[in-house]
Amino acid sequence: MGTPSASAFARVSPGARFGSGVVIGDFSIIHDNVILGDDVVIESHCVIGHPTPLAEGAPLVVGSGSHIRSHSIFYEGSSFGAGLRTGHRVTVREKLTAGVCLQIGTLSDFQGHAELGDHVRTHSNVHICQHSKIGNYVWIFPGTILTNDPHPPSDGSIAGVVVEDYAVIATHSTLMPAVRIGTRALVGAHSLVTRDVAPDTVVCGCPAKAVCRTSDIKLKDGRGDAYPWMRHFHRGYPEEVVQAWLAQWGGLEEANG
Amino acid sequence: MGTPSASAFARVSPGARFGSGVVIGDFSIIHDNVILGDDVVIESHCVIGHPTPLAEGAPLVVGSGSHIRSHSIFYEGSSFGAGLRTGHRVTVREKLTAGVCLQIGTLSDFQGHAELGDHVRTHSNVHICQHSKIGNYVWIFPGTILTNDPHPPSDGSIAGVVVEDYAVIATHSTLMPAVRIGTRALVGAHSLVTRDVAPDTVVCGCPAKAVCRTSDIKLKDGRGDAYPWMRHFHRGYPEEVVQAWLAQWGGLEEANG
Amino acid sequence: MGTPSASAFARVSPGARFGSGVVIGDFSIIHDNVILGDDVVIESHCVIGHPTPLAEGAPLVVGSGSHIRSHSIFYEGSSFGAGLRTGHRVTVREKLTAGVCLQIGTLSDFQGHAELGDHVRTHSNVHICQHSKIGNYVWIFPGTILTNDPHPPSDGSIAGVVVEDYAVIATHSTLMPAVRIGTRALVGAHSLVTRDVAPDTVVCGCPAKAVCRTSDIKLKDGRGDAYPWMRHFHRGYPEEVVQAWLAQWGGLEEANG
Repeated sequence: MGTPSASAFARVSPGARFGSGVVIGDFSIIHDNVILGDDVVIESHCVIGHPTPLAEGAPLVVGSGSHIRSHSIFYEGSSFGAGLRTGHRVTVREKLTAGVCLQIGTLSDFQGHAELGDHVRTHSNVHICQHSKIGNYVWIFPGTILTNDPHPPSDGSIAGVVVEDYAVIATHSTLMPAVRIGTRALVGAHSLVTRDVAPDTVVCGCPAKAVCRTSDIKLKDGRGDAYPWMRHFHRGYPEEVVQAWLAQWGGLEEANG
Repeated sequence: MGTPSASAFARVSPGARFGSGVVIGDFSIIHDNVILGDDVVIESHCVIGHPTPLAEGAPLVVGSGSHIRSHSIFYEGSSFGAGLRTGHRVTVREKLTAGVCLQIGTLSDFQGHAELGDHVRTHSNVHICQHSKIGNYVWIFPGTILTNDPHPPSDGSIAGVVVEDYAVIATHSTLMPAVRIGTRALVGAHSLVTRDVAPDTVVCGCPAKAVCRTSDIKLKDGRGDAYPWMRHFHRGYPEEVVQAWLAQWGGLEEANG
Repeated sequence: MGTPSASAFARVSPGARFGSGVVIGDFSIIHDNVILGDDVVIESHCVIGHPTPLAEGAPLVVGSGSHIRSHSIFYEGSSFGAGLRTGHRVTVREKLTAGVCLQIGTLSDFQGHAELGDHVRTHSNVHICQHSKIGNYVWIFPGTILTNDPHPPSDGSIAGVVVEDYAVIATHSTLMPAVRIGTRALVGAHSLVTRDVAPDTVVCGCPAKAVCRTSDIKLKDGRGDAYPWMRHFHRGYPEEVVQAWLAQWGGLEEANG
């Protein structure tokens, strides 16, 4: 275990446990029940390991190489694999588990009690409700809200959304309780999804309806099929993952710039 | 009046007035024109009583037993009954009045110059515009926006939304200026409400249209009518309120868990 | 160059450059590569000039008389004319340029790499994506999102939204990539804009369709045409600008209050 490089203006509990090379920014608070891996960076004005009885004593665990940007709040009782990266003013409640390389956009609000796979990427202001299950390599774009209560307010009927691997949820959409978004599906912007979406299908509208197959969408730059997106979009993924994608889905020339 | 238990890293004005048992978190600022009741908790990184000439000298008053979570901002000139509870990074401007037991969700943005009754609950990222009038026991779910300007930008025609007692506004909805949401009505998710909604009516869509009576909606767990929700949802309400509801509306067996 | 009046609880880099009369609030951080003009006010809990290699060494420049409210985050590498005013917890990334008197609403999230003209006003929680081009005197209302990726996630086809002078985007709208909103056009609330909007045209719906000319909309207070809004709404604009508007568009009596 290491001793963090903490600002003189940070409040670091002696009970927290750190790997080597951890950096803590100004005006941040690290509570007791926290385990930060090697080389984790916590920027300024954060609250890390916010106590809650709902965590039932479980610690906040943040994997090595993670970077949490300023003004973010993480409760105790959640767990993140290596390579977490967040925007600013992210809120994550207790009992959420995430795989490696999760990206959380600025202002996003994760309510806890949810499961996320590896390499999930959410953009700004995404709201993940309790009991959501998000697969691997999922994308969720700004302002999208996942819901879990079919007749609010209620208790006995809560059912989260399921988003399967490689699915893409575009901007400003609402996903109704218990819907399942199939693998590699695309939910168009500003949609209200009230029913399950089949794999490799594009839906849009309020309520959302199937409009085509993802394979019907072509890149505007003339390089061919836009989906599965793994054919042409590789930024930030591990080389071995990209190679596996190219072998499975074929590949396009990289875009310029 | 009491002396708060304040972090050495808090900035507490000598002009602020406190009941007994008040707790002030790290890196929070308490301005002069503030009156906090007994046992109020202010978490870290808050700004309480932010000065504004628009308050015309009125103080911020927060009733006893209130809990304001981290990174929240309250202006001077608003008033809250006992038992206020907020999420994180809430913003509340001047000249808002609220009854007891208001709950404000994380990221919510209350623009001031509005009235809220007792036991109102808003979830995350709810935007309450000026001149809104919210009754008692109202629910507003994530990402909903109340508006007040019928032809933006204008000044002479501003007219807030009215939400009557027990009404429920579901996720990601937009309420247009001057609409009245009748008592016990339900606005479905991702709706644009352009007209008044009658009591006990369900509306949804863009623009929202009446689709059924609330009594037509059944709980998915088989326990009967989902509305009025006071029949089955009681979490956090005072026992005498719940008993009055059961006497008036009938009751269902409590859900498990 | 001046010495700012900084809180003892602020962290001000010796490399930052200040005009006269600058004020820095409690628990705020001013990084090195920052130039603040005369009489700039930075409230509490801000991060000003957040370092990023994406700025390629360019400073954050904030014009004189600007006021940045609490909990805001500005990256290095962006530039603002005089008279910037922000709400609370605003985020602005690198390589954004804005003219004079920009107003940014609370919670707004500007992703950088964008251009804004003079006197642009955004209300709360507006998301401006990269490569947006916003003209002069534009209004954008709460919860609106501008997008730039026609088949997310992609790289080669990114194309921002263009909003021409005097256009108004109402609450909770989504603007799809590469659309152009014509001068003095009005996008109705909760719209999904998938195509260009002609000047002086009102569109609404999902997807948005043209419904009338802006000149067909009358003020509810009986004073005549609501648009162009410059005929009747003048709050906060310079007197010479208002006089030019009245000469060009005619004027209505000022609203009371």
